[in-house]
Amino acid sequence: MKPSPAAIEALVRAALAEDAPWGDLSSSLLPADARVTAQLVARQPGVLCGAELVTAAFTLTDPRTTTHFHLTDATPFAANTTLATIEGPAASVLQAERVALNLVQRLSGIATLTAQFVRETAGTHAHITDTRKTTPTLRLFERYAVRCGGGHNHRYSLSDAVMLKDNHLAVLAAAGLTLTDAVAQARATLPHTTHIEIEVDRFDQIDAALAADAHTILLDNFSLADLRTAVTHIAGRALTEASGGVTLATVAAVAATGVDLISVGALTHSAPALDIGLDIAPA
Amino acid sequence: MKPSPAAIEALVRAALAEDAPWGDLSSSLLPADARVTAQLVARQPGVLCGAELVTAAFTLTDPRTTTHFHLTDATPFAANTTLATIEGPAASVLQAERVALNLVQRLSGIATLTAQFVRETAGTHAHITDTRKTTPTLRLFERYAVRCGGGHNHRYSLSDAVMLKDNHLAVLAAAGLTLTDAVAQARATLPHTTHIEIEVDRFDQIDAALAADAHTILLDNFSLADLRTAVTHIAGRALTEASGGVTLATVAAVAATGVDLISVGALTHSAPALDIGLDIAPA
Amino acid sequence: MKPSPAAIEALVRAALAEDAPWGDLSSSLLPADARVTAQLVARQPGVLCGAELVTAAFTLTDPRTTTHFHLTDATPFAANTTLATIEGPAASVLQAERVALNLVQRLSGIATLTAQFVRETAGTHAHITDTRKTTPTLRLFERYAVRCGGGHNHRYSLSDAVMLKDNHLAVLAAAGLTLTDAVAQARATLPHTTHIEIEVDRFDQIDAALAADAHTILLDNFSLADLRTAVTHIAGRALTEASGGVTLATVAAVAATGVDLISVGALTHSAPALDIGLDIAPA
Amino acid sequence: MKPSPAAIEALVRAALAEDAPWGDLSSSLLPADARVTAQLVARQPGVLCGAELVTAAFTLTDPRTTTHFHLTDATPFAANTTLATIEGPAASVLQAERVALNLVQRLSGIATLTAQFVRETAGTHAHITDTRKTTPTLRLFERYAVRCGGGHNHRYSLSDAVMLKDNHLAVLAAAGLTLTDAVAQARATLPHTTHIEIEVDRFDQIDAALAADAHTILLDNFSLADLRTAVTHIAGRALTEASGGVTLATVAAVAATGVDLISVGALTHSAPALDIGLDIAPA
Amino acid sequence: MKPSPAAIEALVRAALAEDAPWGDLSSSLLPADARVTAQLVARQPGVLCGAELVTAAFTLTDPRTTTHFHLTDATPFAANTTLATIEGPAASVLQAERVALNLVQRLSGIATLTAQFVRETAGTHAHITDTRKTTPTLRLFERYAVRCGGGHNHRYSLSDAVMLKDNHLAVLAAAGLTLTDAVAQARATLPHTTHIEIEVDRFDQIDAALAADAHTILLDNFSLADLRTAVTHIAGRALTEASGGVTLATVAAVAATGVDLISVGALTHSAPALDIGLDIAPA
Amino acid sequence: MKPSPAAIEALVRAALAEDAPWGDLSSSLLPADARVTAQLVARQPGVLCGAELVTAAFTLTDPRTTTHFHLTDATPFAANTTLATIEGPAASVLQAERVALNLVQRLSGIATLTAQFVRETAGTHAHITDTRKTTPTLRLFERYAVRCGGGHNHRYSLSDAVMLKDNHLAVLAAAGLTLTDAVAQARATLPHTTHIEIEVDRFDQIDAALAADAHTILLDNFSLADLRTAVTHIAGRALTEASGGVTLATVAAVAATGVDLISVGALTHSAPALDIGLDIAPA
Repeated sequence: MKPSPAAIEALVRAALAEDAPWGDLSSSLLPADARVTAQLVARQPGVLCGAELVTAAFTLTDPRTTTHFHLTDATPFAANTTLATIEGPAASVLQAERVALNLVQRLSGIATLTAQFVRETAGTHAHITDTRKTTPTLRLFERYAVRCGGGHNHRYSLSDAVMLKDNHLAVLAAAGLTLTDAVAQARATLPHTTHIEIEVDRFDQIDAALAADAHTILLDNFSLADLRTAVTHIAGRALTEASGGVTLATVAAVAATGVDLISVGALTHSAPALDIGLDIAPA
Repeated sequence: MKPSPAAIEALVRAALAEDAPWGDLSSSLLPADARVTAQLVARQPGVLCGAELVTAAFTLTDPRTTTHFHLTDATPFAANTTLATIEGPAASVLQAERVALNLVQRLSGIATLTAQFVRETAGTHAHITDTRKTTPTLRLFERYAVRCGGGHNHRYSLSDAVMLKDNHLAVLAAAGLTLTDAVAQARATLPHTTHIEIEVDRFDQIDAALAADAHTILLDNFSLADLRTAVTHIAGRALTEASGGVTLATVAAVAATGVDLISVGALTHSAPALDIGLDIAPA
Repeated sequence: MKPSPAAIEALVRAALAEDAPWGDLSSSLLPADARVTAQLVARQPGVLCGAELVTAAFTLTDPRTTTHFHLTDATPFAANTTLATIEGPAASVLQAERVALNLVQRLSGIATLTAQFVRETAGTHAHITDTRKTTPTLRLFERYAVRCGGGHNHRYSLSDAVMLKDNHLAVLAAAGLTLTDAVAQARATLPHTTHIEIEVDRFDQIDAALAADAHTILLDNFSLADLRTAVTHIAGRALTEASGGVTLATVAAVAATGVDLISVGALTHSAPALDIGLDIAPA
Repeated sequence: MKPSPAAIEALVRAALAEDAPWGDLSSSLLPADARVTAQLVARQPGVLCGAELVTAAFTLTDPRTTTHFHLTDATPFAANTTLATIEGPAASVLQAERVALNLVQRLSGIATLTAQFVRETAGTHAHITDTRKTTPTLRLFERYAVRCGGGHNHRYSLSDAVMLKDNHLAVLAAAGLTLTDAVAQARATLPHTTHIEIEVDRFDQIDAALAADAHTILLDNFSLADLRTAVTHIAGRALTEASGGVTLATVAAVAATGVDLISVGALTHSAPALDIGLDIAPA
Repeated sequence: MKPSPAAIEALVRAALAEDAPWGDLSSSLLPADARVTAQLVARQPGVLCGAELVTAAFTLTDPRTTTHFHLTDATPFAANTTLATIEGPAASVLQAERVALNLVQRLSGIATLTAQFVRETAGTHAHITDTRKTTPTLRLFERYAVRCGGGHNHRYSLSDAVMLKDNHLAVLAAAGLTLTDAVAQARATLPHTTHIEIEVDRFDQIDAALAADAHTILLDNFSLADLRTAVTHIAGRALTEASGGVTLATVAAVAATGVDLISVGALTHSAPALDIGLDIAPA
Repeated sequence: MKPSPAAIEALVRAALAEDAPWGDLSSSLLPADARVTAQLVARQPGVLCGAELVTAAFTLTDPRTTTHFHLTDATPFAANTTLATIEGPAASVLQAERVALNLVQRLSGIATLTAQFVRETAGTHAHITDTRKTTPTLRLFERYAVRCGGGHNHRYSLSDAVMLKDNHLAVLAAAGLTLTDAVAQARATLPHTTHIEIEVDRFDQIDAALAADAHTILLDNFSLADLRTAVTHIAGRALTEASGGVTLATVAAVAATGVDLISVGALTHSAPALDIGLDIAPA
């Protein structure tokens, strides 16, 4: 699901207002009729995400600018690739530059890191998924970036699916309730469309999750050996998800255990910005 | 400048709504009267930023929660430090957990990275500053995180100060205008409170900037040797700022050249989240 | 999931502003120190929904009012029951009256109609569910009213679950794609938490839905006989949902066919307001 | 007064966001180049209201859709009438369908019910009017629907006109003030454009209202005989309005008493949705 | 009608954000524990308006401030009167000072000018009224200021009352329609609560307005003699309003003609700010 | 810095909604196909400000209107000059008239008053500047009006520059801190782009400000003689600003003292509206 035009416009307008609440002092010093041509150039290889946001940054600053992307979102590119060409009034292009770059660098950074994780798992059936560890208020965009990188999305929010974690289970236990009780309540009170996922920390918790008829079992911080055993034991009775400090160095081995899903918080909470620049020349 | 209570409330409300647009399905399965005590614990050493945002995440989810921080923002801590204690209804604490963590992990990540840069420059007079390379719509908070880490802030936005970069100068030159013309126009038309900074890429541009009476000269991508020469040449006639790919490995040498300011985009565009967790126990 | 305090406040503030954009001319004629006591009284039997909205209507108009509910949401009541007692400045209570009544009458109307449907299905395992046929922008509240009446919620929105209807299937078919293709794509591209429901109009479409491994099959406008046959045929391999013009007169028979879910658009698009009034007396 | 384009856009944007906060999962499974033609068809006779909202629902979802209405708002239609034709990308038309229908069904339901009341009063000079018993936050639209049905609008809000009801009079009396005092204060302090309406429950209150020079007298819950007597007694010295549980079965007799206005809360608080559907075919 | 607490909070929050989007640089230099006591002092005589806005400016900046007003809105005061005392943290009081002053100076300026007009008309029955010539987006507050000064409010907006001016009449005439036609249409289509006012420029237009049964006749730019003749001629059959360049020098004579209303645009479009200052001392 | 199109649209939309929350009753009485041509005419000489706001008022009311300005903002005009021609549907032009006039009259009033101050200082190098004494929430527009009149802008807000006034100094002194301490702290903690201005009331405070290396010294309420002495004494070591009750009668003498800046609160807090009208004729 690509962010809607309305969502894109709202984010870009807010970002532009933040960066120039009452105009760009520097651009005001340029001749009003000066025009420039600008190339959006990748300084390093990666995967593109944010073309429509870049376009909006220039267009909403000045409708007289034109932005033409040579690649579409989700396309990988080599270093030094020209991603887009922008043309328009010099003052406007220079004013919008930083907002456009901040957006495309961040989202392409996420897409690129995701693609690296996906590439490491080639040949397995494991899906790399995001988490709820996204930048507050930008989840819609960061999840889109994960998809651009070839990753999958997990539940969008707390309102989307049940995920019972160790803390939920401890609270339930303190009240004399079991996992089975909680899942039964979920089926009795929540929409029938609700997916139920159970997090387990230890192998001996798996049978309870299976008994409760969980749709997915999240195997948190399992060793590779335990993951393999768990996948074999579960045997398709539920989807299996691995999580917990998975890195580019370890993800291939995790995928090789046969899990269905590998969730990686770092995709969104720690992806470095991708180095993309704007080369501007007087037109 | 700490973000105002109004700004904090607006961000946290938006983040909570994003993460639970129509409630937390999982928490709805917990007994209504169950309570928990939770410890916000650092999994790695760092510098705290975001205490009031964490508190707001819990309070705005449920005013019956209490959050007590044992450290204030800008305080360094060791791994395994308990940063705060939260107490309240289990369903509410679990619902707010992820938003609280997302905020404090991100901002403390920026504060911690900044503190590392600052530490590397100890004994010099150089200020580490942020840039406009912040997460769109979160600049106010990320700049605060930089300050918590001991860094300094650069201009807030395009409306705050003039910074003439190579692109501005190229546009001016194409129109037959010089740097001196542009600065003269700035003094003639912009508020007298406007600070004027000029970016130079080559040593031979410095004298023009000095002639134009710039307040600050940004020495972009200068070698260490050139930085030293430039600082000596400028000799206090303007502030000097170094920028361009400065890393933790190189910042000490840059600072040793005598520059006044070192701006580092990575502080805000690429700081990894700091690992901070919430340990929850039934109360 | 009860609407959050923030959602309640936002709706009530908007409703109050709509009804008194620049004050209440009539209340301005009352003595400033006059106070009243008011009873919120049911003029007909029903199920309560909206207590916190009523309280907010009075409190946000004037924090000096107090509202005490004698019943909680989801409680059935007889005609002439006093639901709540309000006390406060006469001008404020009279100003807030209509907004409070509009909210509680509408939501209690939905809860009451839902309860009637639920009562008709007693002794069966069928769940009465709402639909997306809600009042635009009030879905969160109307779904809560359905739950207060003992009903269940269907998917919240288009972003929550896949539901492939006849129109989707026709479009797919025109492109040479089958239901199985579409479901396969859903599993390949959508979050693993996605529930997949298929609408069928004819008995002979059921096997395709089962083959595609749908979680739920919606039997639209089936006769009672066909519903029975379908339920027997599906035999628990998927959840079964009946829909299409189900009324209070027919719902018992529909439930008796053994379907798991009966969705009723009228719960939210055509529930009449419940007659609840405010009896006010000078204090 | 038709709602302004800005008001229409705001409502439809909010409704679309509510129904697809992060996209339409089902539509995402359709081929991107698939197109459909859709007919908006009345399943029952009625009066149209909401054409511009329907158009906005499709256009704001995707500007590449086109919507052509064959009737204008306020036009009556027979069952099976094709009201409009929509053409565009399949995914977009299917995504917008429910919001468009929810809007036009609700508003046309109000217009249709209003027209039934108006038809019953043909040959009298009575105006059927709405009340403030509208759906919170949708008053602007529901009042427009009443006008489309041939009804009239009452005061828009508490800020528009004085209406002194029994509760106001009781509060005034408790403070030793009369109706005449209150009306005098109104004339002394409120804008000269303020219309003053007095609600009376009993015949013997009418002369006080006339003495206070009320513009309109609301005869609440009067019997038909009392209405006739009251109209004769008032004799044009004020407008007369009847209210209180007026139904389609009783409205003709009420109108025949000679009252000027009959206000009917059910027009907006209890009008059932009109059955209007969308017949979609691959283009 | 005093602005609601919600309206006051919204305006003051916006004003504070405008004046300190990311904090007060100067206040940040003060010791955190420094406190001040401040006196709000009138530098010239006037009428107070804005007490709750001033209080909100300080409270919303810092809830630890206290503001105590010694006068209520609408009270006249002499030069050098201490209007209020504020106490609180020095940094917060100094940060809020300008917003508080901007609000109270502007509104008290309007109240004071209004009171001067009202005083000039003492002994007549003429009401001084405002117009729609208010500061865009601040009408609610400026009309309240007019009332504080003893003036009356005219219609709030174009949605409140009909006022047919020369331009409307010219457009109607060009279409072959008369004033009587327009008023008939108003009575046929608009709410029965609608007040109808007709602007006339010449004496010979009055009879048409009377024939159309206008509630008020606006005598625009009439000479004093013509006003007197018109009032005599209308003889209570409609309210009379004088307008057109009425000043403090001429208003007494206009009032003496016997008109009911005198509308003065200058009350809101040209009232100078009243000189009110804040005397601050360390506490 | 001209307000951005987004800022203009936001203000005009809010103003239009304020003036016609649910339509224009009067315009609704005009024939739907009636059209008018309108001339925006200056009734007195002045300087134009607000052309784009006027255009937006008509366009946002009805996109079928056309507005053509014959002058650009910042252009002086004589009385009776036709500033613009508007053409469009009569109902729409009449509906938008007042909002358009309110905006252009207010902003042109400010521009015109500013130009008068500027003209008085011709031949000196003094800049006339605005202050923060602007209409709450309209600062962006009023500062633009000052520039249209040939004036200069002071700092935009408290976040832009340090200005230490007498109250700050008193608070510092009470804490045992000097001006030099405060400025040192500013240089140590605030962005290096921060301009520092010090207000002095007495001649003997100047040397401390110079010692603290202030960028600008504000000479508040100095006599002309003292201003001259101060300017001579400061001798270019800081910019000099005069303030305090400067009027059109005194500004020339103040400018003649050699100060660099003269700030005038009255430009924005007390400029009377400029008399500009709309002459409308049926088309």
